[in-house]
Amino acid sequence: MQCHMRFEVEVQDPQCRARVGKLTLPHGEVETPIFMPVGTQASVKACSQEDLEAVGAQIILSNAYHLYLRPGTETMEAAGGIHNFMQWKHPVLTDSGGFQVFSLADLNKVTPEGVTFQSHLDGSRHVFTPEKAIDVQISIGADIIMCFDECTTYPVTRQKAEESMRMTVRWAEACKRRWEERNAVHQALFGIVQGSVYLDLRSECAGALTAMDFPGYAIGGVSVGESKEEMVSVVEATAPLLPEHKPHYLMGVGPPEDILEAIERGVDMFDCVMPTRNARNGGLFTSQGRLNIKNAQYARDFRPIDPECSCPVCQTYTRAYLAHLYRAGEILALRLNTLHNLFFMLQLCAHARDAIRGGCFQDFKRAFLQRYSLQNGGNE
Amino acid sequence: MQCHMRFEVEVQDPQCRARVGKLTLPHGEVETPIFMPVGTQASVKACSQEDLEAVGAQIILSNAYHLYLRPGTETMEAAGGIHNFMQWKHPVLTDSGGFQVFSLADLNKVTPEGVTFQSHLDGSRHVFTPEKAIDVQISIGADIIMCFDECTTYPVTRQKAEESMRMTVRWAEACKRRWEERNAVHQALFGIVQGSVYLDLRSECAGALTAMDFPGYAIGGVSVGESKEEMVSVVEATAPLLPEHKPHYLMGVGPPEDILEAIERGVDMFDCVMPTRNARNGGLFTSQGRLNIKNAQYARDFRPIDPECSCPVCQTYTRAYLAHLYRAGEILALRLNTLHNLFFMLQLCAHARDAIRGGCFQDFKRAFLQRYSLQNGGNE
Repeated sequence: MQCHMRFEVEVQDPQCRARVGKLTLPHGEVETPIFMPVGTQASVKACSQEDLEAVGAQIILSNAYHLYLRPGTETMEAAGGIHNFMQWKHPVLTDSGGFQVFSLADLNKVTPEGVTFQSHLDGSRHVFTPEKAIDVQISIGADIIMCFDECTTYPVTRQKAEESMRMTVRWAEACKRRWEERNAVHQALFGIVQGSVYLDLRSECAGALTAMDFPGYAIGGVSVGESKEEMVSVVEATAPLLPEHKPHYLMGVGPPEDILEAIERGVDMFDCVMPTRNARNGGLFTSQGRLNIKNAQYARDFRPIDPECSCPVCQTYTRAYLAHLYRAGEILALRLNTLHNLFFMLQLCAHARDAIRGGCFQDFKRAFLQRYSLQNGGNE
Repeated sequence: MQCHMRFEVEVQDPQCRARVGKLTLPHGEVETPIFMPVGTQASVKACSQEDLEAVGAQIILSNAYHLYLRPGTETMEAAGGIHNFMQWKHPVLTDSGGFQVFSLADLNKVTPEGVTFQSHLDGSRHVFTPEKAIDVQISIGADIIMCFDECTTYPVTRQKAEESMRMTVRWAEACKRRWEERNAVHQALFGIVQGSVYLDLRSECAGALTAMDFPGYAIGGVSVGESKEEMVSVVEATAPLLPEHKPHYLMGVGPPEDILEAIERGVDMFDCVMPTRNARNGGLFTSQGRLNIKNAQYARDFRPIDPECSCPVCQTYTRAYLAHLYRAGEILALRLNTLHNLFFMLQLCAHARDAIRGGCFQDFKRAFLQRYSLQNGGNE
């Protein structure tokens, strides 16, 4: 089945696998590499949709497990899908809920057919099968939807990782079948490569999924506790196995330094709760590393968070005011910190794209990391 | 001492005491009658300063007690005052902290000189005298500052109310003296009429304060537990005793219906936490009365909060989305609800001004209250 998504690799960096691409989706175009803010419950925490536009978000993430439980697929359908429901006019990607079923819900039983679980909200019983995960995502109506997968914990034995990966592959087949039956051509279905840190399993999984010809491919099962080196080696081994002219999405990654490592190895799309979650704890990104606004030194610091930043927060408010808001428990602190961090991540991707277009991604990465390590940790 | 504030009564309603005025302050003009959103800690809860402009706020309230304790007057001075600190370019009024010293702090001792109290934040000991309250408000730098007063509880005996009112008058003299010594001509000092529900005490207090010739006058000590009828009778008896060509501010009032009663009786300025606090609990104003977004009936209601409202929230989001955000515990719910309620209060004042200009305030009030009672309480 030919879906409506288009992906074009526009520029390939001559020295590494980094590339600039253009993803054309029903709700607009997305330049890659791109960071996708996470709006699990149809809201990027502490931001309005106007805020997201203001910080340069092009596509956001939401979650089938959460929206299935609340407000429910009937409400999503009655609203006319997630774009209407939340009034976000640009592309959306929904995760299938596989990760959440395994990490958040009280899990009752996994069978080859799917998972029986209890809601983390009210304990009610539900069944998610690959088919159900696709149906739910069709009700939600995101531009990109994900296969229902099993995300293994870390560490995991090779045998368990292998069994799990094989089930993920069978589920991917079932998802694809359902997606075709439903003829959801306006939603691009991505396959998810699993296999934990076992590179041969990753390779087997990538091969099996590639044979199914998905519109896009994700690397899942990272950011689950493995070391940065292990994560990078998984990306380095897996990304080259994915079809070059399809988008590559690294799920749940990550801090700026990890995103740059992954871009260098050919990844196009990222999501992570870290920028938004850290913001709500006072952790802010700057070009010279991270700082925490709770630290006493910022109470009378009348500079912006990052003097080099052109975000709406840095154009207006001082560290002293943000420190006061945070200490005083003001809700505005959460929003302003979040806007700054999201802008930072989106600018990082914009600068990466510029560097790739200039054929010098690795130089850009080196320079960024050198400055970014200046006060990293020192103030947090 | 001649302060820089100007107040002009532009239109007097022919049938009641309602009037339209223009208050000219160092940071801009304010049309009266006006509602002032409450930004106790230099932030109107859940709103940014840009949000406040978007909903039509002309002047906001802050609080000397809170800002004195956190971030402290040194920080406020280092920032160059509250306007710079919070980047709000329009007028600000600070309450002196009298009400908070008596209601929030652990009170240790009241003497004719002032109050010794312990901070509600950390138990540290502080002394507020009338002079200190003025000094703190000069450090903060609001356009309008308030005398340090004792706000009696309700109910209170006539004797206690009388003693307290006389002390408030002596403190007002001390405040005025300090304000003149400091030559704070860019800050307008308002006197506060106390006297609880005893109309003769109110009259005595108004007379004493009027003799001191303050730039403006407030009616304090209401909204402390008395009935609506008692509050209205205090306003009805007190407002006519205040100089006609000075602004009249009713402190801590109130719901829309109370504001209209007070406007009719000659009040120009209002503040209340109710619109912002209710919003954070899901309580929303509409032209047909209040509703609570938590109620099950709104979960699939795809109309705006108030189909007649032109606020940014009603232009964009549905009750169903707001209900979802509230239930899901999303921070955005707090902000959107707050913006709607503030817009409602500010529009109420704008419509009142239009009605006064049209010479028909009482007709406007009657029509508003008739519609406003349609679903009042029924859905909350």
